[in-house]
Amino acid sequence: MGLIVQKFGGTSVGSAERIQNAAKRVADEIEKGNQVAVVVSAMGKSTDALVSLAQSISSMPNKREMDMLLATGEQVTISLMAMALQEMGIKAVSLTGWQAGIRTEAVPGNARITNIQNEKMMNYLDEDKVVIVAGFQGLDEHDEITTLGRGGSDTTAVALAAALKADRCDIYTDVPGVFTSDPRYVNDARKLHSISYDEMLELANLGAGVLHPRAVEFAKNYGVPLEVRSSMENIEGTIIEEEASMEQNLIVRGVAFEEDIIRVTLTGLSNELHHLSQIFMTLAAEHVNVDIIIQSRTESQQASVSFSIKKDVLQDTIRILEENRVLLGFEDVEYETGLAKVSIVGSGMVSNPGVAARMFKALADNEIQIKMVSTSEIKVSTVISQERMIDAANILHNEFGLSGIEAPVEAK
Amino acid sequence: MGLIVQKFGGTSVGSAERIQNAAKRVADEIEKGNQVAVVVSAMGKSTDALVSLAQSISSMPNKREMDMLLATGEQVTISLMAMALQEMGIKAVSLTGWQAGIRTEAVPGNARITNIQNEKMMNYLDEDKVVIVAGFQGLDEHDEITTLGRGGSDTTAVALAAALKADRCDIYTDVPGVFTSDPRYVNDARKLHSISYDEMLELANLGAGVLHPRAVEFAKNYGVPLEVRSSMENIEGTIIEEEASMEQNLIVRGVAFEEDIIRVTLTGLSNELHHLSQIFMTLAAEHVNVDIIIQSRTESQQASVSFSIKKDVLQDTIRILEENRVLLGFEDVEYETGLAKVSIVGSGMVSNPGVAARMFKALADNEIQIKMVSTSEIKVSTVISQERMIDAANILHNEFGLSGIEAPVEAK
Repeated sequence: MGLIVQKFGGTSVGSAERIQNAAKRVADEIEKGNQVAVVVSAMGKSTDALVSLAQSISSMPNKREMDMLLATGEQVTISLMAMALQEMGIKAVSLTGWQAGIRTEAVPGNARITNIQNEKMMNYLDEDKVVIVAGFQGLDEHDEITTLGRGGSDTTAVALAAALKADRCDIYTDVPGVFTSDPRYVNDARKLHSISYDEMLELANLGAGVLHPRAVEFAKNYGVPLEVRSSMENIEGTIIEEEASMEQNLIVRGVAFEEDIIRVTLTGLSNELHHLSQIFMTLAAEHVNVDIIIQSRTESQQASVSFSIKKDVLQDTIRILEENRVLLGFEDVEYETGLAKVSIVGSGMVSNPGVAARMFKALADNEIQIKMVSTSEIKVSTVISQERMIDAANILHNEFGLSGIEAPVEAK
Repeated sequence: MGLIVQKFGGTSVGSAERIQNAAKRVADEIEKGNQVAVVVSAMGKSTDALVSLAQSISSMPNKREMDMLLATGEQVTISLMAMALQEMGIKAVSLTGWQAGIRTEAVPGNARITNIQNEKMMNYLDEDKVVIVAGFQGLDEHDEITTLGRGGSDTTAVALAAALKADRCDIYTDVPGVFTSDPRYVNDARKLHSISYDEMLELANLGAGVLHPRAVEFAKNYGVPLEVRSSMENIEGTIIEEEASMEQNLIVRGVAFEEDIIRVTLTGLSNELHHLSQIFMTLAAEHVNVDIIIQSRTESQQASVSFSIKKDVLQDTIRILEENRVLLGFEDVEYETGLAKVSIVGSGMVSNPGVAARMFKALADNEIQIKMVSTSEIKVSTVISQERMIDAANILHNEFGLSGIEAPVEAK
C-alpha cells in the first residue's frame, strides 16, 4: 500500500462530467489499495472569468482582494470532487488551502509555500478518506488568503507529496505526457518516456506549459517522483526523475517556445556598476520576473541594458522603473513587443560543444533574426520575432533529430 | 460619528455595475463621517448555479461539501465590493466569515451563529477601513466552514451590528421597504413607515421574504434598530424597532402569503402521548422545521396528526418518518401538495377579539376552503389551496382596510 498524490488541472475538471471522470482515476488508485491525496485547480476557464469580473470593476485591482477572489475557484472544485467520489461510494473530504495547513509567504498573487502542517490531512488519510485539497492557495502569517500565481496547483501537489512523504505525484493534464515540442505546432513532436528534473525544469521555465517550473524545482529538491499523465485516457505518461534512463544519446531533448515576450531597454545609463544591480534588485523586490538580460556599453560612456519580461508584468515594470528613475540612473525606457522565445533543451549539451552555434546557423539559414540569446549548461534560448516562432520551432526540432524516433503522438 | 452596518442582498450585488452602485451607498455613510461594516450575499443567482452544479454530480450532495461549495459565492462578492470601494478612493478590506471571527454551531447548511470575535474587524475599523464581511457563513468548532441557510446574510448583518455595537443596521434590498402585502400580487399594497420587531417577525416567518426571521429575532433580542431600504434609489425605507410609533390604529398591519406548503398526515397513531412528542422531537433533531400542527382524535382510538412543512424538506421528512416508523408508532404517512399559507399580522389584534373570525368569514364568503389554521397573539395563518392564494391575499388586504391609506407604491 502506498500514498499517491494526484493533481488535476483546470481542463481535467472543466465540467461536472470531467470531474466525474477524474474521480475514476482516483478510484483506480483506491482499488489498488493506495491512499490518495488529490489536488485540483479551478474549473476550466473559471479563473479567467473571475479576473475579467474584477477588471470590469478596477483596471488595477488590489492584489490581496484578487487572492480573495481567485481562491474561490479551487474551493468550488474540491467540494464537487468530494461529492463525485462520495457518489461512487468512496469516503472523501475537501480542504481549502488553509484547512490543509498550507502556509505561504505574505506575497499576494505570487506567494511561495513556506510550510505544510500535515496533521489534519494525515488524520483524514488514516480514516481511509481521500483528501481533496484546493491547489494554488494558502494562508500567510497574518491569516490572509494568498495564491501561488498561475500554475501554482502543480506546486501545491508536489509540496503536498513531499509533506505527506508520498510515493509518487501524478500530474493529470489534458495532454498524454511531455513532448519533444508542442504537437499543436510541431507536426513531428513525440511523447518522451522519461526526462530528468533539470531538463524538465528548463522546459517548464521555457513555457512548455505542461508543468509549472516551481513544481519541478520542488520535486527535484525533495526527490518526489513525478508522472505527467492524461486525465482523459488511462495510458502511460512521462516520468520525471533524477536520471532519465532512456534516450540519453540525444543531445537535445526538446524544443520549447513562448509568445508575448517583451524586450525592455533602458538607455543613457550612468556608468556606475551599482545602478545595474539596483535596477534588477528593485524589480525583484516588487516581484517582477526578468528573464534574459543583455548589457552593452559603447565608448561614448552611454551604456544601456535590455531585458525580457512577460506581457502581464509590463504595466508593473514600467511603473516601477518610472517611479525609481532617479535612483536607477537611466535616461529613457523603451520596449519592444511582438517577440517570442524559442529554446532547445538537453542535458547532453554540456558534453557536446557547438550546439548553440548549430542552432544559430539553422535560424540564420532560414532568415530568422536573433534579438537576444541566453544559455545555460543544458539549454539555449533565443528571442526572435513572434511571427517566425512556429517556423523556428519546427526548424530546430528537425535540425536536432527529434522527429521520427517513434511514431508521432497526436495530442488532444 | 456612528457605526453603521449595511447589508446588500444578492440582487443588489448581482453584477459589477450593481456592486458599484451599492458601493455608492457605502460612500454616502463614509461622507457623513460614519464607520461602516458591510455584509454581502452571493451575486444574483450564483448560489442557484452552484446548487445545480452540485446536483449534476449528486442527487443528494453531502451537506458539509455543499457548505464548502456555497461559501465561495459570498467570498466572490466581498472581494469585488472591496475593489469597487478602493476604486472610489475609500479604504476597504474584505473578510470571509471565519476571518471576521464568526463562529457557528456544527450544523452544515443550517448553522446558527454562536459567537463573533470582533477584534479583527474593530482593528480595521479603527484604521478607517470599511470592513466587508461575507454573509451567510461562519466556522464551527472543528474549523469547518458552515453556512447559515438561505437568507442567512441578514442574520450575519444583524449579528455583526450587535457584536460591533453598531448604531443601526441597514438592510438594502431590491424593494423600497416593508409592504402591507406583496405589491406584485396585491395591487393596493403600500409601504409601511415603521413596524415592530414582533410584527416583522411574524411577517418574515410567513414568507414576506424581505428579511430573514432569524435576523429579526436577533435584532429584537439585541435591540438593533433595522431599516429596510432600496439599494437602487436613495429614499426612506421602513424602520423596524421595538415600538412602531405610527399607524398603531390599524388592527392588521400586513398580509403575507407563501406557496409550496405541504401537509403531512400520520394516521393510525397509537394513542400514547409520548409518541406525539417523539415525532416532533425526531424531526427537530434532524433540523426539519415544522410549522402548523393539528392533532385530531376520533372515538375509535384511531388518532392522527397533521403538520405543514415546506417543499424543500419533504424528502428528508418522509425518510426520517419511514426510518423511525416503529419508534414513532404510526400506521401510514400521507401528504398533500399544492397548498399555500395566507396570514394576517398585526399587534393590534391582541386587544381586538374577533379578528380571526372576520378573516374566516371573508375567505368563506369567497368560497376559499381553509385546510389548517394557526394563531398567535399577533397573527392568524390559514392553509388553503395554492390556486386561491393571490385571491385570498387581495380579499384580506381589502377586508382589513390596508389599501388606500396613502398612494400605492410600485415595487421594482
